[in-house]
Amino acid sequence: MSAVWFDGALVEGRIPVDPGDRGLTLGDGLFETIAIFNGKPVYLKAHLDRLDSGARELGIRVSRREIESGIAELLRTSSFGHAILRLTVTRGVGARGLSAESDRPALLITLAPWQLGTIYAPVRLATSSIRRNQSSPASRLKSLSYIDNILAAREASKAGANDALLLNMQGRVACSTIANVFLIAGQSLITPPLSEGVLPGITRARVLALARAAGLVADERPIAPADLFSSGAVFLTNSIRLIRPVMAIDGQTLPKPGLDRIRSIFDLLMADIAGSTGTLDPVTL
Amino acid sequence: MSAVWFDGALVEGRIPVDPGDRGLTLGDGLFETIAIFNGKPVYLKAHLDRLDSGARELGIRVSRREIESGIAELLRTSSFGHAILRLTVTRGVGARGLSAESDRPALLITLAPWQLGTIYAPVRLATSSIRRNQSSPASRLKSLSYIDNILAAREASKAGANDALLLNMQGRVACSTIANVFLIAGQSLITPPLSEGVLPGITRARVLALARAAGLVADERPIAPADLFSSGAVFLTNSIRLIRPVMAIDGQTLPKPGLDRIRSIFDLLMADIAGSTGTLDPVTL
Repeated sequence: MSAVWFDGALVEGRIPVDPGDRGLTLGDGLFETIAIFNGKPVYLKAHLDRLDSGARELGIRVSRREIESGIAELLRTSSFGHAILRLTVTRGVGARGLSAESDRPALLITLAPWQLGTIYAPVRLATSSIRRNQSSPASRLKSLSYIDNILAAREASKAGANDALLLNMQGRVACSTIANVFLIAGQSLITPPLSEGVLPGITRARVLALARAAGLVADERPIAPADLFSSGAVFLTNSIRLIRPVMAIDGQTLPKPGLDRIRSIFDLLMADIAGSTGTLDPVTL
Repeated sequence: MSAVWFDGALVEGRIPVDPGDRGLTLGDGLFETIAIFNGKPVYLKAHLDRLDSGARELGIRVSRREIESGIAELLRTSSFGHAILRLTVTRGVGARGLSAESDRPALLITLAPWQLGTIYAPVRLATSSIRRNQSSPASRLKSLSYIDNILAAREASKAGANDALLLNMQGRVACSTIANVFLIAGQSLITPPLSEGVLPGITRARVLALARAAGLVADERPIAPADLFSSGAVFLTNSIRLIRPVMAIDGQTLPKPGLDRIRSIFDLLMADIAGSTGTLDPVTL
């Protein structure tokens, strides 16, 4: 069972949505997915900063105070230890027309228990036929319009893979349907720059910041698909699954999975999370 | 005031949506916008066929019988003459994970009165920096994930234009944010093929079918942006606005607006609509 906060109050069961809400009718809004370890949100400020920034770009007038108050109320009244908190902000109801404004966004916050089983689970990827459209600002926003990712995930699932590898319009590596992509090559920790059509992942930013502690040099630069096979290790980052090593792409096993190097970055990230949430031992894996 | 049908019944005010509905949280669904003239839906079968086809592609198990029954109930209990009917189908509630299935889609139908003022209204376009991603099947689906179109429409609005012209990944003409694009060159009536990243518009299909009656040869082929300036006439098609002549693109007036040729196609379309709805004079403009 999830706990739900909508439009100012805790709600049981269904939520009363305006039939003209543009989140429901047009995917016009943003979301954040935040890990809760031992009742404490992970990197909460970074998630809310990203939501603020996206809302400004879309012209959605979201109230940070209201969001913080809703999160606090949900966490106070729920007894989940490990959980996933999802923030959904829609533009609200607008006049007819795609460019219409709305005075009042809708805000939905849900909290669902979580078993941690996907953290550090190895991943097989299948390259999607759907390209990441880096010409759109939406490629750098966590918008509600997720149909390309859904189609790519369904395609990957049919191919027997855990997730899809998305290339951008130039055929370079962008991301998976739910994660940023990293590779380790020599002493470099490489991930594509945001301009490649990449979401500014919260875990992505933390992992880049932890590169030096791992004895690596952070390097945001374009990645060709072939680079993934010749590198020392490939992994994904995501706010819920944190870090997942990539074992194979399109059925081809990566020659050097480099699990020891990925594990050392994972351990640094877990320590960073423990420090940031004030929980010494957030997760026992 | 709109009339609203949701999940099997007429509803006043807000609708009870499951907080895990993937239409609301992920733009995972489809919609149709259908013109109602004198209480009668225009090209209803074609709209429902397109919805069925999109639902099959997305793996959404929508019930055509339920949709038809909802539409009939809404039309029976409302007294709007000219109106816009919108069908919204979501995948419903799924397990966590982008590729999750759902047994029961959600179905929302709304009916709103309409003044016809946008029919045949001339349009100024601004070319968007956002490209249409023809690598994605979603470029040919009327999905709920509309954020690229919303961003492009807001960009066009800021530039003082009525709508955005979207080019595809190869820089060729795809569509506007809400319409298909046609041009008349000599005796040819040209529009880009669906493979260019184009929604199979219902009005688009009717206009192609009416080409011969207009003394033209229908020709689906790629269009370079420069072709729009050298052609005899450019216009948009859409189920609500029907046909709108394009007067200018990026502030540059089209040299040959060819309004007489566009008007003759418009008149054929209006006669076609009158015949298909069984209403002799659906609209007086």
